[in-house]
Amino acid sequence: MKFKVKNFDIEIEEYKVVMNVLDVNEMGLMAGDRVKVKNKESVTAVVEMTDTMLPQGVVGIYDEVWKKLRIKKGEEVEILPAAQPESIALIKKKMDGNKLSKDEFYTIVQDIVDGNLTDAELTAFVTSTYIHGMDLDEIEWMTRAMVDTGERIEFDKHPVVDKHSIGGVPGNKVSLLVVPIVAAAGLLIPKTSSRAITGAAGTADLMEVLAPVSLSASEIKDITEKVGGVIAWGGATNIAPADDEIIEVEYPLSIDPYCQVLASVMAKKCAVGAEAVVIDIPTGSGTTVRTVEDGRKMARDFIELGERMGISVECVMTYGGGPIGRTIGPALEVQEAFCVLESMKGPHSLIEKSTSLAGILLEMGGVAQGAGKAAAEEILRSGRALQKMKEIIEAQGGDSNVSSKTIQVGDKKTDWLSPTGGYATEFDNKRLIEIARAAGAPADKGAGIVIHKKKGEAVKKGETLITIYAEKSWKLENAIREAQRKEPVIVEGMVLERVPDITETRIR
Amino acid sequence: MKFKVKNFDIEIEEYKVVMNVLDVNEMGLMAGDRVKVKNKESVTAVVEMTDTMLPQGVVGIYDEVWKKLRIKKGEEVEILPAAQPESIALIKKKMDGNKLSKDEFYTIVQDIVDGNLTDAELTAFVTSTYIHGMDLDEIEWMTRAMVDTGERIEFDKHPVVDKHSIGGVPGNKVSLLVVPIVAAAGLLIPKTSSRAITGAAGTADLMEVLAPVSLSASEIKDITEKVGGVIAWGGATNIAPADDEIIEVEYPLSIDPYCQVLASVMAKKCAVGAEAVVIDIPTGSGTTVRTVEDGRKMARDFIELGERMGISVECVMTYGGGPIGRTIGPALEVQEAFCVLESMKGPHSLIEKSTSLAGILLEMGGVAQGAGKAAAEEILRSGRALQKMKEIIEAQGGDSNVSSKTIQVGDKKTDWLSPTGGYATEFDNKRLIEIARAAGAPADKGAGIVIHKKKGEAVKKGETLITIYAEKSWKLENAIREAQRKEPVIVEGMVLERVPDITETRIR
Repeated sequence: MKFKVKNFDIEIEEYKVVMNVLDVNEMGLMAGDRVKVKNKESVTAVVEMTDTMLPQGVVGIYDEVWKKLRIKKGEEVEILPAAQPESIALIKKKMDGNKLSKDEFYTIVQDIVDGNLTDAELTAFVTSTYIHGMDLDEIEWMTRAMVDTGERIEFDKHPVVDKHSIGGVPGNKVSLLVVPIVAAAGLLIPKTSSRAITGAAGTADLMEVLAPVSLSASEIKDITEKVGGVIAWGGATNIAPADDEIIEVEYPLSIDPYCQVLASVMAKKCAVGAEAVVIDIPTGSGTTVRTVEDGRKMARDFIELGERMGISVECVMTYGGGPIGRTIGPALEVQEAFCVLESMKGPHSLIEKSTSLAGILLEMGGVAQGAGKAAAEEILRSGRALQKMKEIIEAQGGDSNVSSKTIQVGDKKTDWLSPTGGYATEFDNKRLIEIARAAGAPADKGAGIVIHKKKGEAVKKGETLITIYAEKSWKLENAIREAQRKEPVIVEGMVLERVPDITETRIR
Repeated sequence: MKFKVKNFDIEIEEYKVVMNVLDVNEMGLMAGDRVKVKNKESVTAVVEMTDTMLPQGVVGIYDEVWKKLRIKKGEEVEILPAAQPESIALIKKKMDGNKLSKDEFYTIVQDIVDGNLTDAELTAFVTSTYIHGMDLDEIEWMTRAMVDTGERIEFDKHPVVDKHSIGGVPGNKVSLLVVPIVAAAGLLIPKTSSRAITGAAGTADLMEVLAPVSLSASEIKDITEKVGGVIAWGGATNIAPADDEIIEVEYPLSIDPYCQVLASVMAKKCAVGAEAVVIDIPTGSGTTVRTVEDGRKMARDFIELGERMGISVECVMTYGGGPIGRTIGPALEVQEAFCVLESMKGPHSLIEKSTSLAGILLEMGGVAQGAGKAAAEEILRSGRALQKMKEIIEAQGGDSNVSSKTIQVGDKKTDWLSPTGGYATEFDNKRLIEIARAAGAPADKGAGIVIHKKKGEAVKKGETLITIYAEKSWKLENAIREAQRKEPVIVEGMVLERVPDITETRIR
């Protein structure tokens, strides 16, 4: 049937049209069904119904379809019933607890990337994988499908290594140290990272204090080949794009299915061409992985998935019960990392964790047999890591004259004093993050928290426990109110245990 | 923060606003979070983000929020971060396989009715109940919450009885006979029914051939008290409104969780004040309930749920392997039912099933001790059911001078001939429904199928197997193409087994 068009000038990130209920019935359809919208080109869209908003014979077309078909005002389009994407039946199959095949995962992931599934349909898929889980075959197929439906980087130089931290620990600025140490040792490390979703600062938020992070896949390749390393925002690339769509529907429900974490991390590492990867698995209350047992299982699964994908993986379980270092929030964390790069001055927990992770990569990359940590410490102490970090900043388009002194933090601040004397005891990561977010992190780069007293330290009454920084007075007040809800206290963190790659896979 | 408003003149059936990504970040929010939108009144809405469509400081407001707050052009509104509805955490709890409490079901159902959940969030809930199921406590609480969040009918006269058929069987026009028989016997039967979702004609679609079916709860009460019965469209009332929202998200995924079927049916029966209910459970391939064992389990659960709700329930398992009677599609089915009402002429399967179901209600309602079926047959044979049906039609605003002769069926038709001689053998319900829908049913009332040869009947080569009716030539052609995809063949249907109420619950 031919329809007049009305443009709904709104981006909804789905292919969707609106039709009068009588037209929808006439075509034997229901709301939620698909139609083919056709002029010279065609696209499949989901139908919404209206009783009153549009007369019969007029179809309301949202921006995505409008632009895709390059519709002109006054033009007519043909609307025809269309079959549901094959993925719907496959989602139903997963919902019923059945294992999906390799081809079936490709079908679903391609439909995700092409925008053929509604948020509700994608939520049904993610919910089903959350409840039923996936076995390692399925995780492998999901990973491969995510890699193959996006851009891939192939390096001319080798070896290429990478690092990933499982989430939940505030203040985890270790990538700012690991990347330059590893690059300074002559390995390639094309690190893509995320922005904070529920946290106070993701690695991409940190790096953005220093340089642009929205880089294309080819920019990531060029910069990495030139200076050895990069710290980019994964969301700006077209690397494993299905992952971004999945994360979007996970967010409102605060779910993060185990199988999707494995597939997501490994898909990104595989797509950037990594040959050896170290995975940091913080465990503790408030982190994604709660117990050491869960951490060991995840480590084993990462290692096996790595083998299947041809990537050598080592995992370290780290203490995640408290923040890494003494700062939370973009600029404050960058400042702390720069102090370490400039003079090795800084929290023991941060230096320990960073050099441990970097050391493992140096060993895996074959540039420090059995003495990776010492080599990493030496690169840090010698200033070569600082020099490399400045090269990376400059290559990404930032100012390489930056130093811990020049990094701007929020000029609104307040000291949070201890109401009593004694020893600082634990408080959970979530509280710290909530206060930092209330102060404006991660959007306000200068907002965050400096921790003065950590777990076990003696505190006098009236001594400062934490200092809250903000860029705006009203956000500082929000943060103070947030802190007043429950008194803050403090903890410490470092590597608990190292899980080596079981097999003797060598880097190609 | 204060924002200028821009009206997005579109009904999306959700409270939603669109904001520039920088404003969303500034507020420490992400897409999918909630905000409070405030002028003199306030409403909680979900945030969508845009990079380009709106500048900073302007909020795009869809129709639902716009109307709720009675916003005027040029007005400013305040936007504040708002907490997620409590239901989200409860959905997560169900997703994790935990049992929800009575209060928790009320919270979720109230949020569903109030439009506080997105389609994706509601899909996550429905998917979780599909996978994990609910125990009978949970089903009872869900049912009660659905009843209590909508309108209820309280009758002054008693007893009030009702009937429901579980779906999947084409041609199931028995309500058109059961309702007038039962009403003619002096019982009240306020039947609300559905339109076809995936079928060729729901009971509401059938009744609409005869009279308006969009009745309010008070109209249903008045008509039932006046003439004894009504056949209304449940979707037009505010009875158990959560059910309509749930069905909307189930449709695109073609899921119909067992626990939701129980809650949905009993909520509607309870809300109309039914004291005794007969449930028809057709079993067979292509129906909702596949096996007799599954049917027995469903019967037991319906009976127990009824006890908990104070409703006396009997279930009958019926043959669902083929269509009821010889017609499929609104006008054709009504015509067939009228032939039976007028002269007891018609398919044995239809008369048997209708008088069996009606008979059980007569017994449960205390007007035909132990001889319900015979009493129902007598009411039908005597013409009292026909007279009552005409009263019901008139009371609903239809023309009571209707007869099987005056009902208009589609004037486009084609005979589908047997390509060979032999005996008619089975073919699945789904194929018949697909052909009838291709011909235009249920939207085109005159479209459908007449079945000439049923299972086991001898057929000569070239004899007519079915006749396809349509109102429009192009739809008749669609139906022929649909029939050509696979040859049609034929089956028969009647009551297989009766499952009595185990307890001796008497009607109050």
